Amino acid sequence: MTDEFRTTRMVEFSETDMAGIMHFSNFFRFMESAEHAFYRSKGFSVDEAKSLGLGWPRVKAECEYRHPLRFEDVVDIRVRVHRLGTRSITLEFQFSKTEDGQELSVATGAITAVCVERDPKTGEFHPVPIPKTIRDRIQTDANR
Amino acid sequence: MTDEFRTTRMVEFSETDMAGIMHFSNFFRFMESAEHAFYRSKGFSVDEAKSLGLGWPRVKAECEYRHPLRFEDVVDIRVRVHRLGTRSITLEFQFSKTEDGQELSVATGAITAVCVERDPKTGEFHPVPIPKTIRDRIQTDANR
Amino acid sequence: MTDEFRTTRMVEFSETDMAGIMHFSNFFRFMESAEHAFYRSKGFSVDEAKSLGLGWPRVKAECEYRHPLRFEDVVDIRVRVHRLGTRSITLEFQFSKTEDGQELSVATGAITAVCVERDPKTGEFHPVPIPKTIRDRIQTDANR
Amino acid sequence: MTDEFRTTRMVEFSETDMAGIMHFSNFFRFMESAEHAFYRSKGFSVDEAKSLGLGWPRVKAECEYRHPLRFEDVVDIRVRVHRLGTRSITLEFQFSKTEDGQELSVATGAITAVCVERDPKTGEFHPVPIPKTIRDRIQTDANR
Repeated sequence: MTDEFRTTRMVEFSETDMAGIMHFSNFFRFMESAEHAFYRSKGFSVDEAKSLGLGWPRVKAECEYRHPLRFEDVVDIRVRVHRLGTRSITLEFQFSKTEDGQELSVATGAITAVCVERDPKTGEFHPVPIPKTIRDRIQTDANR
Repeated sequence: MTDEFRTTRMVEFSETDMAGIMHFSNFFRFMESAEHAFYRSKGFSVDEAKSLGLGWPRVKAECEYRHPLRFEDVVDIRVRVHRLGTRSITLEFQFSKTEDGQELSVATGAITAVCVERDPKTGEFHPVPIPKTIRDRIQTDANR
Repeated sequence: MTDEFRTTRMVEFSETDMAGIMHFSNFFRFMESAEHAFYRSKGFSVDEAKSLGLGWPRVKAECEYRHPLRFEDVVDIRVRVHRLGTRSITLEFQFSKTEDGQELSVATGAITAVCVERDPKTGEFHPVPIPKTIRDRIQTDANR
Repeated sequence: MTDEFRTTRMVEFSETDMAGIMHFSNFFRFMESAEHAFYRSKGFSVDEAKSLGLGWPRVKAECEYRHPLRFEDVVDIRVRVHRLGTRSITLEFQFSKTEDGQELSVATGAITAVCVERDPKTGEFHPVPIPKTIRDRIQTDANR
């Protein structure tokens, strides 16, 4: 599949918990950083969106866990656009690691975010259509 | 509903992000600490389980977000046993805050954990039935 | 000493690491939340300062560790104003816990923050004198 | 200087706070991950030490901040052995970033850790001399 983005990271000591494995909440931080790396690979940054007064608050986040990650594990994260709506986007994430030469599926997750405009006075968020310039760069993949 | 546990906490500065709201991953940390407070209210600690060689790795975690939380917001978290299986438990969490005298639903989440035994040699986890002493204390509620 | 503020919190599971103790970086998060509770006890919030365009970036943070904190440990945090300068403030923190009926000194830390104004255009910070309204409320203590 | 280790990382969204900059506590997480990368470059892992029943609890951590880090900033971290004692080691860290073609010093930090043995029964830590195999690999640098 060509419309997939891959990135890799190593589990840090501060990301483990007293059970000796990566704390389950960190998978969501990993998803988000993979999401941002995916966006950068498309030529735009969430920060750039922010300078347009746009934000991407999450409406849903989920993760299913199959195998634990441990300190210094190198985890492979694959990102795919699951659905690109008018105002929202759902990304899917597949976490895997290689153990004894075999790829092991670790977890699968998804994040749905809506595009919002931030009212500079009240700080409130209002959903808006994803700008065409951003949509075009993502769509190339989602439509294939 | 009587079989519900409630707890409260305040959003800290370090839990916010540059969008000015609580980072979405922290809702999962909040769920877990409410889960542990719930267990303590039933008279047992996850730490006690650990001393029996038991752990509660997560198999699923999810959250739907409706309103952002901001710095120093006081959030009310309600915990309910959604399902108590032989080896697994699913807890539901409702997050709300009071704004202008009205209760505002902030988010809803769920965590499914399995009871496992930790092999002291390999560190591997094996699912085991939830011990009767723990089950009895939770069941009082789930069965009502 | 009357010019001291005390607060208490419980170590959460997500704050531990694979060594079975609270990760050392979390002491800094604990210091900050004690700092904010201290400010609230003086009748103002860091958030209120923010609405005036003010921020409190840190110029120095340090911690000396004597005993580890573990999951569900209740830690007592004492906050004291060590120095109140024109533009900066240094707070000292003492962490202790009670074990076998005895108070055990866990750690000692300090944070120095400067009062800054945030340029709304560039986002840059410029140091400014701590506003009198804020200084007056803190000074009551520091001068005793 | 040849006895210096360098690593690089990018600031993630979840590492920022509502002031729009990286939260000061994350510099300590960054120091630790640079420390572990430094150890890996010397051919040993903290995890390997752990399998020998050894740990490296911190006795002191400090950081001085000069410039904020922002989302997607690439930060360069230099690690140097400041002091290698019988049972303890102090590492120094220099954080910098490149802005408008110029290197900007962001922060300087230090961590002192002691080598301890973990009593498998009580979970208590006892300081022990740093094993020769580990010391030899670090010393090459510290003694130059």
